[in-house]
Amino acid sequence: MDARMPTGTPQPAFVLIRPQMGENIGAAARAMWNFGLDRMRVIAPRDGWPNEKAVAMASGAGRLLDEAQLYDTTADALADCTFVYATTARPRGLTKPVMSPEAALADAAARTARGEKVAIMFGPERAGMENDDIARANVIITVPVNPDFPSLNLAQCVLLSAYEWRRATEAVAAERIEMAGAEWATTGDVEALATHFEQELDQAGFFFPDHKAASMKLNLRNLWSRMPFTRADVATLHGMLRQLLRPRG
Amino acid sequence: MDARMPTGTPQPAFVLIRPQMGENIGAAARAMWNFGLDRMRVIAPRDGWPNEKAVAMASGAGRLLDEAQLYDTTADALADCTFVYATTARPRGLTKPVMSPEAALADAAARTARGEKVAIMFGPERAGMENDDIARANVIITVPVNPDFPSLNLAQCVLLSAYEWRRATEAVAAERIEMAGAEWATTGDVEALATHFEQELDQAGFFFPDHKAASMKLNLRNLWSRMPFTRADVATLHGMLRQLLRPRG
Repeated sequence: MDARMPTGTPQPAFVLIRPQMGENIGAAARAMWNFGLDRMRVIAPRDGWPNEKAVAMASGAGRLLDEAQLYDTTADALADCTFVYATTARPRGLTKPVMSPEAALADAAARTARGEKVAIMFGPERAGMENDDIARANVIITVPVNPDFPSLNLAQCVLLSAYEWRRATEAVAAERIEMAGAEWATTGDVEALATHFEQELDQAGFFFPDHKAASMKLNLRNLWSRMPFTRADVATLHGMLRQLLRPRG
Repeated sequence: MDARMPTGTPQPAFVLIRPQMGENIGAAARAMWNFGLDRMRVIAPRDGWPNEKAVAMASGAGRLLDEAQLYDTTADALADCTFVYATTARPRGLTKPVMSPEAALADAAARTARGEKVAIMFGPERAGMENDDIARANVIITVPVNPDFPSLNLAQCVLLSAYEWRRATEAVAAERIEMAGAEWATTGDVEALATHFEQELDQAGFFFPDHKAASMKLNLRNLWSRMPFTRADVATLHGMLRQLLRPRG
């Protein structure tokens, strides 16, 4: 089994959401590259970009920071992805499948082998991910930690995910799968669909009463992101909505 | 599946060999406790013991340091163990089974469930383990890292091992095994046997020529530690050696 993984091989993007300490970004880069992953995306890092402390900590994996893609919002960072995982330890009150790192990265490896573009999100150090971010994920990844001491840090969480990716792809490599015929919707496609519905529903007075509007919108976003949509599905739903709103008669 | 793991549950000892930075010892304690492990042994830490920086870093897992057992030598630290794993990335030129973390910790879980006392060794940060230490292990654990960037640090190595322990014991819990009838030799038993043979062989002029003596001794130590000896086996071998040396006639 050749352990080498050329950087041209399709692989998930690891998306760091509003990371705080440069050291942690650097340590995350090292953890990724330890297992042959080099596609990092960074959303709104607290201390700006590039970050000297991240570079110092990443020694040997600095290339990942040089090549990292920077985004302002989670929606932008995920726009081209077809399937998204969010790592979080806490229950969120959102209906969403929860997978172990092993199951999730095996799933990610199978999807990647079929030509899908997947992303794995990691929340900021202290607060963890916000529900607005989680709602954009298709699946939640939860590490089976000691409930009396569940405090994994960012780089540890990245390390375990990258390790499971490596394990999964070593297994999948033997049974590589043909590209499936269907073309999956991207997160950007689903985002546009969600926005289309949200705007029209808002105008229709659906989000009522006012103090419940925010959580109703969140739950709806979450509903869309749970669905395994193809691009054709999304086009159909847009068409349905437009048709429903067309003046009668 | 209850994720809680009471500290009374049998579990492997994690043995840190001559660790250097207190921060790394503290981070290793955190990583262990993240997955419910709390039996740490420390051999000859560079900066003495207790170590303030270790305590500061361990926050929340400080109890592991308070309860850690301190030893001067690897032989002492392993004396009561029946099966020992050594984590190392580099090939060592010693004949020794090599396992992935997954396979090794599944093996460790099965042995622990049968009443064996197992230990997992982690080398010092920079240099890694010495061959003298490795030769005392029954099995080598190697993490399948990116060969272009294999630099896992101590706490990362501990984290992956503890994570695999957790995964393995969740699986084993369903099919707990009865205590086996045989009583395994401890590492201390095997050490005493190895020393007995080494001394007698030395007197017999076996380790010749002089410049090869060290590597011959290392290989012999390694041979003993590879064997799945029972206490009865060890007693038999001591007896055989004594008998062979008894004056004839």
